Amino acid sequence: MTSPATRRSGGRAARRAARAAPLAQDIRPIRPGMEGGTLRTLSDADMQRIHETAMDALEQIGLIDAPQSGIDIMTAAGAILGDDGRLRFPRALVEDTLAIACKDITLPGRDPANDMHLSGHRVHYGTAGAAVHMVEPDGRTYRESTLQDLHDAARITDQLDNIHFLQRPMVARDVVDNREMDLNTIYACCSGTTKHIGTSFTDPAYIPDALEMLYMIAGGEDKWRERPFLSNSNCFVVPPMKFATESCEVMEACIRGGMPVLLLSAGMAGATAPSTIAGAIVQATAECLAGLVYVNAIQPGHPAIFGTWPFGLDLRTGAMSVGSGEQALLSAGCAQMHKFYGLPGGAAAGASDSKLPDMQAGWEQMCSNVMAGLSGLNMVYEAAGMHASLLGFCHESLILGDDLIGQALRCVRGIEVDDATLALEQIREVCVGGPGHYLGTDATLSRMQIDHVYPTLGDRTSPKEWAEKDKPDLITNATTRKQKMLSEPSTARFDPILDHALRRRFNIHLPA
Amino acid sequence: MTSPATRRSGGRAARRAARAAPLAQDIRPIRPGMEGGTLRTLSDADMQRIHETAMDALEQIGLIDAPQSGIDIMTAAGAILGDDGRLRFPRALVEDTLAIACKDITLPGRDPANDMHLSGHRVHYGTAGAAVHMVEPDGRTYRESTLQDLHDAARITDQLDNIHFLQRPMVARDVVDNREMDLNTIYACCSGTTKHIGTSFTDPAYIPDALEMLYMIAGGEDKWRERPFLSNSNCFVVPPMKFATESCEVMEACIRGGMPVLLLSAGMAGATAPSTIAGAIVQATAECLAGLVYVNAIQPGHPAIFGTWPFGLDLRTGAMSVGSGEQALLSAGCAQMHKFYGLPGGAAAGASDSKLPDMQAGWEQMCSNVMAGLSGLNMVYEAAGMHASLLGFCHESLILGDDLIGQALRCVRGIEVDDATLALEQIREVCVGGPGHYLGTDATLSRMQIDHVYPTLGDRTSPKEWAEKDKPDLITNATTRKQKMLSEPSTARFDPILDHALRRRFNIHLPA
Repeated sequence: MTSPATRRSGGRAARRAARAAPLAQDIRPIRPGMEGGTLRTLSDADMQRIHETAMDALEQIGLIDAPQSGIDIMTAAGAILGDDGRLRFPRALVEDTLAIACKDITLPGRDPANDMHLSGHRVHYGTAGAAVHMVEPDGRTYRESTLQDLHDAARITDQLDNIHFLQRPMVARDVVDNREMDLNTIYACCSGTTKHIGTSFTDPAYIPDALEMLYMIAGGEDKWRERPFLSNSNCFVVPPMKFATESCEVMEACIRGGMPVLLLSAGMAGATAPSTIAGAIVQATAECLAGLVYVNAIQPGHPAIFGTWPFGLDLRTGAMSVGSGEQALLSAGCAQMHKFYGLPGGAAAGASDSKLPDMQAGWEQMCSNVMAGLSGLNMVYEAAGMHASLLGFCHESLILGDDLIGQALRCVRGIEVDDATLALEQIREVCVGGPGHYLGTDATLSRMQIDHVYPTLGDRTSPKEWAEKDKPDLITNATTRKQKMLSEPSTARFDPILDHALRRRFNIHLPA
Repeated sequence: MTSPATRRSGGRAARRAARAAPLAQDIRPIRPGMEGGTLRTLSDADMQRIHETAMDALEQIGLIDAPQSGIDIMTAAGAILGDDGRLRFPRALVEDTLAIACKDITLPGRDPANDMHLSGHRVHYGTAGAAVHMVEPDGRTYRESTLQDLHDAARITDQLDNIHFLQRPMVARDVVDNREMDLNTIYACCSGTTKHIGTSFTDPAYIPDALEMLYMIAGGEDKWRERPFLSNSNCFVVPPMKFATESCEVMEACIRGGMPVLLLSAGMAGATAPSTIAGAIVQATAECLAGLVYVNAIQPGHPAIFGTWPFGLDLRTGAMSVGSGEQALLSAGCAQMHKFYGLPGGAAAGASDSKLPDMQAGWEQMCSNVMAGLSGLNMVYEAAGMHASLLGFCHESLILGDDLIGQALRCVRGIEVDDATLALEQIREVCVGGPGHYLGTDATLSRMQIDHVYPTLGDRTSPKEWAEKDKPDLITNATTRKQKMLSEPSTARFDPILDHALRRRFNIHLPA
């Protein structure tokens, strides 16, 4: 006769083996694009007031510093250039724009299985940013980030179920020429993952080369235009209420090249935006509405993500702070404003002020990530790997972010209420003449995979098991997983003929 | 002329000094009892269905194993004892109970400044549990928890703004006699903090002694009954749908002694409750409604906290799991059911499966804590310090929990929308002929303290500052803070005459 402990662990082993088999996509408990919307930090009246105030700001205050091309485009559409150089937006112009703006954006991946459909409260999480440091948690060190680091981030992202897109999270500091940096960024990202890519460009003059590279990767301009797998993350404004002249020129060129645009307004509440959460949202909303007018005046219905990205500030020091509750509210409130307009939108969440992937990083990353998801934010940018108030990126943290975001997505999925889940008959069977517990009921076993998210690295052992396993360290395990992920050839890499062609045409800094 | 860097750090120093002055309670950005309710994971129709199913379960299935006293009390009130020994509750009985149940509970602290008013969506965070281990993060060790550990937890709680009550989080393993353990638990908690205490009792026979001790601490039975600063955390059911016979007898004695009761139903979804979130909430709701009938049949309107505490389970291993997204949804859904009935309620959130205060602990603790708060849970139990799926308690984690919960409370406070916060005039002044930034505006400076929560140990330095400070470690800083907190005499300690009397009457294991 086996001992109870043996029998029990035999059952565990069987359950673990069952779990080890990969789940078909359609029965996975969580997926990209689950519908949020249960969190409403703003009431309907609040949203209406924010909207009205943003409209007032556009009509009365307007934006300065548009490039001449932008002034021509927007005044032709109905904006009014004042003697003070500010471009003002009559209410009717904004309303007309909202009527024609693209409400349902598909952001393609190079692999169609990774396409993201942005509409309603569908939620996607991914990276973003322009970190200049790489965080090495084992040595607690910060060093300059490189092109290889970026490529590795792409390769890791490609293998993580809950990181749905890769917007360039860090700058390749080792590529000193800006043109080459921008082109190598595309190469490093696209050759590392078939998920949708986001990036930015330093100079409008680089766009023709960038488009040429993208056409080559896509297999021709027509194929690119059909499925543009890279979008332009564009800081088209320098808040408060100023167009970023060069970025606007970049945007015009990207739109003409068929590239989706992220209209990114990144004010800092208390420095370049009002310190109040409502005020920062008003200003970001006004700025993005101006951007939307601009985009739709160039190309009606061009895919543009409404990117109200207000950031927090530590007013004691004047330093940026992205891990706070205030930040979580800023992004959650923005998500609701996107839905107020029915527009696909994005904001930043999941970044930490902590320098390392420690407990502070965990609570900061979860707070804004889960609130953004619950608010139905379509694109949650900076959702994993981001430290030191956006200055540092960490591969281990990105990997742990997959578990963290998986948990957030489970919360986004929410609570299903129907006859089966209410379980009255099951309660009756178990309690009245039944076994008195639910461990082996059909309902429990049949839902074990489809209802429950199991972490990959998150540890659920008992103290005893944990001690027997020599007290595994979360970060060490993440490093081990990173090494394993990077030790195998990337499935996203270009085929040799394309790679050769790209390397002949462009100065690619990554080793072949 | 000073360099820009010097000027800048001079400004910082001034701002830091301004911040160092403690804030008056009424302008603190966060307070106990802030109103949540913006998260609604259940729709109105969902709640109605959960309610109806719970009523069906009470009427058709009922509960078994009530003590004879309880059977007498509840059948006299209208419950029906079946031939199968199950006590069933007609709908009208439950409805009548809901009509007379206490809707507005004040849980007093020994210091009235720490009173908690449980009504509406007012949120309070505190400890709870019955951990048997103490976690020492510096050595990554688990050891048996002691009475001194419990007293230290009380003293730390007393000094943390965002830990609003102390329910006994761990068991004094070094007090082997159960009667002495229960009495020493009261002593160790009450002599460590003037915040409200929760505890449980092993045996109904100990209640007279416990009440005698409480009367002595209060200064007489009448004073105790006026302000009962300790409540009975009572696991009156052993789910599914069974009364816990002895605990029910404890509860009867506590109610007669004027002690508020936490009606605690702690099913494990997938083991002692249905595996589905909705089903686990149904069963917990049914069980707590039965408890509410019981309480109100003894003493109409007696303060009873509706304690639906369903826990999660890792179905792969059959082990408890409290750090998951499923757990966060269980507690958030329960919070809504409490408000469906208009009852003061509590549930568990903020506990972690991780063995240490690491990144996993951070994300797990924040996920359920912030969702519980946003759902308007009146009493968030197990909110800080709890590890290893409730088996371990950690003082450092408790201290860091103060920062974590502070951030969650900021999210509970939400977004204020009014003319001042919408900031149209401020935007105009800054942008049109103004400084072009908001750093020094009156609005920014005047709201710097009242709008923003600043962490105590959470680190917001830049990588450069951080390196200059020798890369401070979060946990080491928490240990240092703990040592400082425990090095000073407790302001909550009993006056010497009372202490002497207590020690003469009871065998107190803590050194005088």
